Amino acid sequence: MQARDTMKTYHLLAPGDAVLAAFSGGADSTALLHLLCALREEWGLRVFAAHLNHGLRGEEADRDEAFVRARCVEWGVPCFVRRTDVRAEAARTGESEELCGRRLRYAFFAEQAEALGAKIATAHTLSDSVETMLLNLARGTGLAGLRGIPPVRGNIVRPLIETTRAEVEVYCAAHGLNYVTDSTNFSRAYGRNRIRLDVVPALRALNPALERTLARDMRLFARDEAVLEDLTASLLRAAAVPGGFAAEVLRASPLCARALAAAAAQTTGLRPEAVHVRAMEQLLRTGAGRTQLRGGWFAEIVRGVLSFSPGKEEPPAPFCRPLAPGVLENGPVRLKVTPVEHANVKKFESFCARYFKSVLDCDKIIGKAVIRTRRAGDFYHPAGRGVGKSLKKLFNEQAVPPSLRPYVPVAADETGIIWVGGFGPDARCAPDTGTRRVLFLAYDADTRKGATGDGGY
Amino acid sequence: MQARDTMKTYHLLAPGDAVLAAFSGGADSTALLHLLCALREEWGLRVFAAHLNHGLRGEEADRDEAFVRARCVEWGVPCFVRRTDVRAEAARTGESEELCGRRLRYAFFAEQAEALGAKIATAHTLSDSVETMLLNLARGTGLAGLRGIPPVRGNIVRPLIETTRAEVEVYCAAHGLNYVTDSTNFSRAYGRNRIRLDVVPALRALNPALERTLARDMRLFARDEAVLEDLTASLLRAAAVPGGFAAEVLRASPLCARALAAAAAQTTGLRPEAVHVRAMEQLLRTGAGRTQLRGGWFAEIVRGVLSFSPGKEEPPAPFCRPLAPGVLENGPVRLKVTPVEHANVKKFESFCARYFKSVLDCDKIIGKAVIRTRRAGDFYHPAGRGVGKSLKKLFNEQAVPPSLRPYVPVAADETGIIWVGGFGPDARCAPDTGTRRVLFLAYDADTRKGATGDGGY
Repeated sequence: MQARDTMKTYHLLAPGDAVLAAFSGGADSTALLHLLCALREEWGLRVFAAHLNHGLRGEEADRDEAFVRARCVEWGVPCFVRRTDVRAEAARTGESEELCGRRLRYAFFAEQAEALGAKIATAHTLSDSVETMLLNLARGTGLAGLRGIPPVRGNIVRPLIETTRAEVEVYCAAHGLNYVTDSTNFSRAYGRNRIRLDVVPALRALNPALERTLARDMRLFARDEAVLEDLTASLLRAAAVPGGFAAEVLRASPLCARALAAAAAQTTGLRPEAVHVRAMEQLLRTGAGRTQLRGGWFAEIVRGVLSFSPGKEEPPAPFCRPLAPGVLENGPVRLKVTPVEHANVKKFESFCARYFKSVLDCDKIIGKAVIRTRRAGDFYHPAGRGVGKSLKKLFNEQAVPPSLRPYVPVAADETGIIWVGGFGPDARCAPDTGTRRVLFLAYDADTRKGATGDGGY
Repeated sequence: MQARDTMKTYHLLAPGDAVLAAFSGGADSTALLHLLCALREEWGLRVFAAHLNHGLRGEEADRDEAFVRARCVEWGVPCFVRRTDVRAEAARTGESEELCGRRLRYAFFAEQAEALGAKIATAHTLSDSVETMLLNLARGTGLAGLRGIPPVRGNIVRPLIETTRAEVEVYCAAHGLNYVTDSTNFSRAYGRNRIRLDVVPALRALNPALERTLARDMRLFARDEAVLEDLTASLLRAAAVPGGFAAEVLRASPLCARALAAAAAQTTGLRPEAVHVRAMEQLLRTGAGRTQLRGGWFAEIVRGVLSFSPGKEEPPAPFCRPLAPGVLENGPVRLKVTPVEHANVKKFESFCARYFKSVLDCDKIIGKAVIRTRRAGDFYHPAGRGVGKSLKKLFNEQAVPPSLRPYVPVAADETGIIWVGGFGPDARCAPDTGTRRVLFLAYDADTRKGATGDGGY
């Protein structure tokens, strides 16, 4: 099996090692544990398993736990099981259940592994790595996000990271291994599932060897990224001056954006978002001034020296201007307003229906209209929903990122809100069969984060 | 409109320039020509249009030509139209109709532009650029393929390269522009259409600002790639010795694979494929030997010096070995054989149906079986097709790349072919309801090319 080669190539396990397999009971981790058991004698491994019952999927979670326990008894593997309530913990911390579950899971594995003096083996496959890479691509994490999942991180090893999910299934078939299936694997509510169910099959139609091709490219991207990170570190050393970095040295380099991100991350401890890097690039071009980063930090250029300092976190400035054709850019937000006449569009109704969230019936505006950011007490009736809601409630319901909320553009006329970015027109100003001319409001928000390094794994 | 900013940022057109717009009559090129006409006076441009009727879509092509002529008369734009027979030309040269059409189109534009002393403006949008990037990603062209379509290449300029297709549609609606629609835009027979219709919408569900995010990342990738290409060129200069390159200098560098590809490309004039780069890397590790590249060129290491020389093109060595469990790698081909017992798979029939092309009923093999490459006269009956065919005909019909054909694995028993890589079992050995055990033959072929630089545009 490929996994044996992977383990040798990356020195994942050595003879006599203790290894704790993360064992969900799915095909991947069942194959992994079976393989580790098969190597127990040959490699002199001591094999353990750990299973965290997240308590999220009711009877299904209990079924999985029972399956895991039974398999470990059958294979003679000491097994550590913990039950937890991810939903309650996530509610307490404000994390998503997905993130919270991962945090608790890895904390549990680390705790057990430490007690055993063992490495942790997870069952991530090449297919997982490809999905992570495509997710990162969509979110815009730059080259670092295209490296996929690494075979080793700290004391975590991933023997299946060069094996595809299809190969795992064949391995299970060849060895008569049963496994459980997580019913949430098919829900398109999860970004990863959309990638797996929609994107990967479409790309595989273009290249049947997709996973093998991308495995090679991810290795190349990792090498490229390592070279660029080394160069960036050298650039920062060359630019270092007392109290900060020589702005001119950074500005002259093609690695300027990378250097700014790295300098901010190493000084503030927080990786800047794309919008912050862009603001710092603008600062370098201007040659002087100050811009806010994450967590109340500021980047500043004084007498040619770029420095970082903590300050009082300033809320983004509110704005308000007449609603008129043109482009508005503010922080992560971009809004473009274009008037469209009925006479100019052959199928005006289908045009309005297709772009529903972006159109506003001009003739229904009362008095003067403005485009502005949110205000306390904002309330509107999203067209087609039949209910009125406060903007605050709407943002919460739709999980608009808190950092984005102060930037979301809101259009209002003299009687109230007529349109909200991302949500569309108020019922009062929505287009209908009598509509003759509309304002087209193309809105998007770049809320991407910096690269997460190893794709969140 | 964004396009005005793009033209200024990249200095696409200067006052007084003559510009020849490539005008298909679709939304993108209609918007482009309209915009150029709007700027005629302001920027003092001389605007021309050119249209190549490919003669491929019958009446639709004539409709498009008439539309183009009418619009140019209406807008006062001198228009050059040529009719050609792409099908006949493609048949003559052996190109695909797509490639041949592009070649003829650009040749026509270049000819007209030269006579006019004009730049060529094409209507490629940010959406085209994103599609090209995703196509290249699927094909595995490395970082170079992720740069998207550049705003300028030689005398070709692309004013819409930062404008999305949706923005173009709104522009057309706002200005009451009609346009024609190419009926082949919706056929999934074209890789690009699969990307546009299936992949991009799925990724946009994960990030509504997908195109803007990727526009930024493509610019970052272009910068990263430029830095790495400069470093690679420096490495090659540092490694240069009489007659070639010092193998040890290349081997020690993290840019080794890039340097090998660049060295081969600049010496032989042919960009090596991934499989050739891998073979050269292997050569470096071995420290001596010889490997074949494209077009009859060879890479060789003698006394620590890597050199390239033309030689007699050697066909890949045929092979033949017993059909047995294990992995076979040969050139671009990978085959993994795994035995699977009926008793080990819960739903054996659905397993066989799902993996039909990969399974072979063991009990139907007559005598000893081998796995080998093709031989003259090979003939088989692909299961489920109801006809027998020569392998030669099958490869031609399915357009198996000629460079891949000598590597495709073929399984045969004492009475004939029983399975062919990429085509599946012979009717005689296909699984059926009586099947008890199968051989699972997981086959794929890495036929990707090197990066095409600007994605074929």
